[in-house]
Amino acid sequence: MGLAAADNDILADALQRIQEEVNDAFDEFLPPVADGRSSLVDAMRYAAIGGGKRVRPLLLVATAELYGVSRRAAVHAGCAVEAIHAYSLIHDDLPCMDDDALRHGKPTVHRAFDEATAVLAGDSLHALAFDILTRTDTSSDPFVQAELVRCLALASGHEGMAGGQVMDMAAEDSTYDLGQITRLQQLKTGALLGASVEMGAILGRVPPEGRTHLRGYARDIGLAFQIADDLLDVEGDEAKAGKALRKDEGQGKATFVTLMGVEKARAQAGMLVEQAAQHLASYGDKAKLLVALARYIVERDR
Amino acid sequence: MGLAAADNDILADALQRIQEEVNDAFDEFLPPVADGRSSLVDAMRYAAIGGGKRVRPLLLVATAELYGVSRRAAVHAGCAVEAIHAYSLIHDDLPCMDDDALRHGKPTVHRAFDEATAVLAGDSLHALAFDILTRTDTSSDPFVQAELVRCLALASGHEGMAGGQVMDMAAEDSTYDLGQITRLQQLKTGALLGASVEMGAILGRVPPEGRTHLRGYARDIGLAFQIADDLLDVEGDEAKAGKALRKDEGQGKATFVTLMGVEKARAQAGMLVEQAAQHLASYGDKAKLLVALARYIVERDR
Repeated sequence: MGLAAADNDILADALQRIQEEVNDAFDEFLPPVADGRSSLVDAMRYAAIGGGKRVRPLLLVATAELYGVSRRAAVHAGCAVEAIHAYSLIHDDLPCMDDDALRHGKPTVHRAFDEATAVLAGDSLHALAFDILTRTDTSSDPFVQAELVRCLALASGHEGMAGGQVMDMAAEDSTYDLGQITRLQQLKTGALLGASVEMGAILGRVPPEGRTHLRGYARDIGLAFQIADDLLDVEGDEAKAGKALRKDEGQGKATFVTLMGVEKARAQAGMLVEQAAQHLASYGDKAKLLVALARYIVERDR
Repeated sequence: MGLAAADNDILADALQRIQEEVNDAFDEFLPPVADGRSSLVDAMRYAAIGGGKRVRPLLLVATAELYGVSRRAAVHAGCAVEAIHAYSLIHDDLPCMDDDALRHGKPTVHRAFDEATAVLAGDSLHALAFDILTRTDTSSDPFVQAELVRCLALASGHEGMAGGQVMDMAAEDSTYDLGQITRLQQLKTGALLGASVEMGAILGRVPPEGRTHLRGYARDIGLAFQIADDLLDVEGDEAKAGKALRKDEGQGKATFVTLMGVEKARAQAGMLVEQAAQHLASYGDKAKLLVALARYIVERDR
């Protein structure tokens, strides 16, 4: 089930391209300023430019491509999702949350700047996401803009990512079973990955009833992504990951790996990826990149 | 220039009514949940329901009333602004920011819950604002929805409120002059007050070129509001204010009052309120509530 060499090339090229496009777009959205806000904008740039695999923007762009959406519009919407992801990492890393010193191989925002600036840089990236979605070069159609906003707001708030975060905090020393961990991760990681796919379909003007296969794909890769993260926490290389690992065990935290064991968790991730690919069977070769991305999600080393 | 008795009654009734409506709406938007997210939703309810003068929702509703907008739509949009205001207070009160123990006469969110929950409750209220603006009972017109989102995202992010916050942090022990303090406050307080008026006009389908008088009004009350806040910090009653006062002096912070003195600052606030009222002259008696609200903004004791 590994990536074939050709698919690997397609994926490596696609990742490199989206990384450049997202960095360039953030550089354009966030020009440095020379007034009293300079530390804030510098911290936003520090968090948004350079780091990150850009899995979410690539998911969005690859989905939008199925429907012939303009590349520029899809990259912009991808930056909105990535701005939400980046803000959540800044806040997660804070001393009162995970208290992490390293992210994407460099000091976390509150270490490189200070805590107050980190809180506000996160908040400002959060607002930037909705600013980006309502620009005319993301979509000139207010109906599409409003649907993108609605999708992203629901995925990031208390019914999505932030809700999952709170459940995750309670997972330390908890007695969560596999069903509860699955629900937690569907919110914490799955909601934003799902929104990435959904927003690609929204840009493609696919009505909700036409998104069933895409949603099935997104659900499966969301869980696979989190299982892969749990495996990385146990088996990964900190230098490659660019962040602290072996944290779950120290916190006595229930994860897919502590509940299923390494072997079963890996098998489950592989099964989910195959299932994700099957959801896209009707798209044929057009969905090659999304299928390769699903495989990458469980095979990545960071 | 005090409030005439009749205007006082109109305003007191209007404030009481909007306070009830905003509380009821948040109660509807945020029903308590029984799963692992309960502490998050409880913290969001704690911050959003009960406290606050609701000046911003009233500004929005009173502006929307000039153009015959449905009350329900305007109250919903007012809740979106208030969700942004509430999130900013939660984050401002954090130990790494102002480290405040009291807000609206009760313990701040991080004291009543914990810091991590406070960060996430703020983030979730931030997302809720954009969720509310894209509901069909706020507006059934995606064009209006998208314009509301754009207005609020710009007013709250690094080019608005959050940008002003960062400048305000630097105001401690700074050498800001009156021009810089004015610019800072136009961002920190003025942007969201301005957005409240602007969003009322957006709901009323007033094109940007028809909003000149309203924008003049909003600019003047924004500055007057902040001068009144600075005066309250020096002269107010902590029990009435429901929060810690005398903070600016202790921090050696440049404010309108430290730069102008109490008497001149009070005169300036009064002048701004009269100027704000003049901007609305062409609306005649229809703008009575907005004029009374401008007076209240500088005469309030909390």
